[in-house]
Amino acid sequence: MGLVVQKYGGSSVADAEGIKRVAKRIVEAKKNGHQVVVVVSAMGDTTDELIDLAEQVSPIPSGREFDMLLTAGERISMALLAMAIKNLGHEAQSFTGSQAGVITDSVHNKARIIDVTPGRIRESIDAGNIAIVAGFQGVSQDKKDITTLGRGGSDTTAVALAAALEGEVCEIYTDVDGVFTADPRVVKKARKIDWISFEDMLELASSGSKVLLHRCVEYARRYNIPIHVRSSFSGLKGTWVSNEPQGDQPMEQAIISGVAHDTSEAKITVVGVPDKPGEAAAIFRTISDSELNIDMVVQNVSAASTGLTDISFTLPKTDGHKAMEALTKAQPTIGFDSLRYDDQIAKISLVGAGMRTNPGVTASFFEALSNAGVNIELISTSEIRISVVTRADDVKEAVRAVHTAFGLDSDNVEAVVYGGTGR
Amino acid sequence: MGLVVQKYGGSSVADAEGIKRVAKRIVEAKKNGHQVVVVVSAMGDTTDELIDLAEQVSPIPSGREFDMLLTAGERISMALLAMAIKNLGHEAQSFTGSQAGVITDSVHNKARIIDVTPGRIRESIDAGNIAIVAGFQGVSQDKKDITTLGRGGSDTTAVALAAALEGEVCEIYTDVDGVFTADPRVVKKARKIDWISFEDMLELASSGSKVLLHRCVEYARRYNIPIHVRSSFSGLKGTWVSNEPQGDQPMEQAIISGVAHDTSEAKITVVGVPDKPGEAAAIFRTISDSELNIDMVVQNVSAASTGLTDISFTLPKTDGHKAMEALTKAQPTIGFDSLRYDDQIAKISLVGAGMRTNPGVTASFFEALSNAGVNIELISTSEIRISVVTRADDVKEAVRAVHTAFGLDSDNVEAVVYGGTGR
Repeated sequence: MGLVVQKYGGSSVADAEGIKRVAKRIVEAKKNGHQVVVVVSAMGDTTDELIDLAEQVSPIPSGREFDMLLTAGERISMALLAMAIKNLGHEAQSFTGSQAGVITDSVHNKARIIDVTPGRIRESIDAGNIAIVAGFQGVSQDKKDITTLGRGGSDTTAVALAAALEGEVCEIYTDVDGVFTADPRVVKKARKIDWISFEDMLELASSGSKVLLHRCVEYARRYNIPIHVRSSFSGLKGTWVSNEPQGDQPMEQAIISGVAHDTSEAKITVVGVPDKPGEAAAIFRTISDSELNIDMVVQNVSAASTGLTDISFTLPKTDGHKAMEALTKAQPTIGFDSLRYDDQIAKISLVGAGMRTNPGVTASFFEALSNAGVNIELISTSEIRISVVTRADDVKEAVRAVHTAFGLDSDNVEAVVYGGTGR
Repeated sequence: MGLVVQKYGGSSVADAEGIKRVAKRIVEAKKNGHQVVVVVSAMGDTTDELIDLAEQVSPIPSGREFDMLLTAGERISMALLAMAIKNLGHEAQSFTGSQAGVITDSVHNKARIIDVTPGRIRESIDAGNIAIVAGFQGVSQDKKDITTLGRGGSDTTAVALAAALEGEVCEIYTDVDGVFTADPRVVKKARKIDWISFEDMLELASSGSKVLLHRCVEYARRYNIPIHVRSSFSGLKGTWVSNEPQGDQPMEQAIISGVAHDTSEAKITVVGVPDKPGEAAAIFRTISDSELNIDMVVQNVSAASTGLTDISFTLPKTDGHKAMEALTKAQPTIGFDSLRYDDQIAKISLVGAGMRTNPGVTASFFEALSNAGVNIELISTSEIRISVVTRADDVKEAVRAVHTAFGLDSDNVEAVVYGGTGR
């Protein structure tokens, strides 16, 4: 029996009852003979309430102080969780990110973990305690200031601690039963995935699946820490994310892991770009100079009659305004006709390492969409993923059609709870 | 222009508006050329809300975790205050007790400050920042665990920082205009005291005056740090507490500083104690073995006919039950007749160094009570204080009568706000 890192999101510890329920589950793992390190997020709405307070005192809160403020959230949940565990007759000690040795860079609000030096945690668990660690936070290497890791940061804390402590597994407890073949809110027949490779999980995460963030999976892959995503409510087995299947898991990977969708992006089309070398580069240099990230890019075939072409790309809606401004400003220099902005789009992605060796996948994907009457506006592919852009209105129908076409539908409709995954 | 430490209690930073108001005041001090270090308590009801949460998860929360939990309160208020100051165009940085170098012993929930090593604070203010420090908290010297200083701890933090940074003054901002000659809620004509010596302030604090706690005044006296108690709402000059009057303050001390009262104590009478050596010692050894502190003690004259006497003492009501239990248990050994418990008492104290050289004070005090029809049950005196115990029902009338008799009544009734003083 080795060391287990468990992470509980904000919805799992939303109130005193939740904290007591989680405490029982932690104690079970301890009773089973594991050394247990727990990473916990702030309770339910705490973070939103703190952000609201910050907005009341300052329109643009300082990064350093904002981090100091937000980290109060985990301090509350971790202390309460330690108390609840002690109340069950087991020893527990809570530690801030700083005390747990989570060392980060100095980029407030979205710091990156540089190193983890978990000496105090090791000492605590070796003395027989359950160690509770504040997720989402660390301390900067140079200035010793409190930092936060940004969205999904607690998951990253958990994986990083599991890596530093050489844990057997990092269990991410959330309010869903695991990773599904599609968003269960959209596809009632979505199936829980028993095992998925890091590779496929990374593609799902970057295609709109919100259960695990890309950054956390990337970290787990680098240090080869198996992740077990499961519900803190149901007690069911969840989804294992790892290099290879474990124990009784299916040895053969499914051709297709799942269908992801994303409605958070917008599409910008640059119309009437002279079809000559350097034009596309000029456009994307303008975007990257504004520190904006783009996702899909498609250049249409040039119309022979005019020598002009259109270039379309997608990016997060939240960056749309900034991108349009930058391009408008650069129009005289670059020399295109006009710009079109469209935020009524959806991206639908099919992910699966099996498509490498199954040449029919792309055709089946397009057929399924066509049969459902869904028009495709953009296409982009990687080795193990195909993504298309459609009208936002078509997204549910498109996801369901593709899910059925690839035989992903479950026989029985499972009851799942779905919500935010905390931070 | 030297260094000023300002402390703001929870009621001064109860909401976003309060925080912005306090930020303006802090910036004013900075603009006046001072280096400014601010100690802040948790916002309004935050501490109570956190205690309530702790009680929901565990009936007897662990000291270590309870401190971890409570210190989230100042973390929130200090970060918000720093943001509000930056929003006014001044640089501010917040620091936890640990970051500020407040080193304590390991007694959780009521730690004592062992040392203050304010290197980071010094660096921050020397760089032109306003430093905001979490009150009430520190870090234990041996285990590096987070500790809290107990009731009134933020005031002590402020004085300790002022001492370590060699500040000119420690300004304690609260929701009253200063220290009054009596509790203004009881005596409408109570006068604000312009200057009071450490000595008299210590007696007032231990006699029921709640504006400053004994511990904080004691610390200030030891390091000779003048305290200026004033309102964060009114902007008026408050009360200076120091060794000697300063600037335009009256050079001559009043004979009587004020009248304090305390209704938080109970009286226990041990009836029928054999009047022989060792009996009183046995009784008070029983009490001290239970780690209870007693306040006043009176032994009646022995009745010659029986050779028995009664011994009465007062102690905090909260300790009453424990004391009665301990004495009942010890009754067979000690050999007294019975115990009487009375929690309907009040203590009224007259404080003033001038009474040393004014022999009529005691007589006037008793006359005033007698004229008001108030019966005296116990009397105890120190060199600069006389305290009596009366019925709780008589307390207001007694305090007013004494206040008038010693010429303390103000000519004009000032508007004062009175509430808790935070922690």
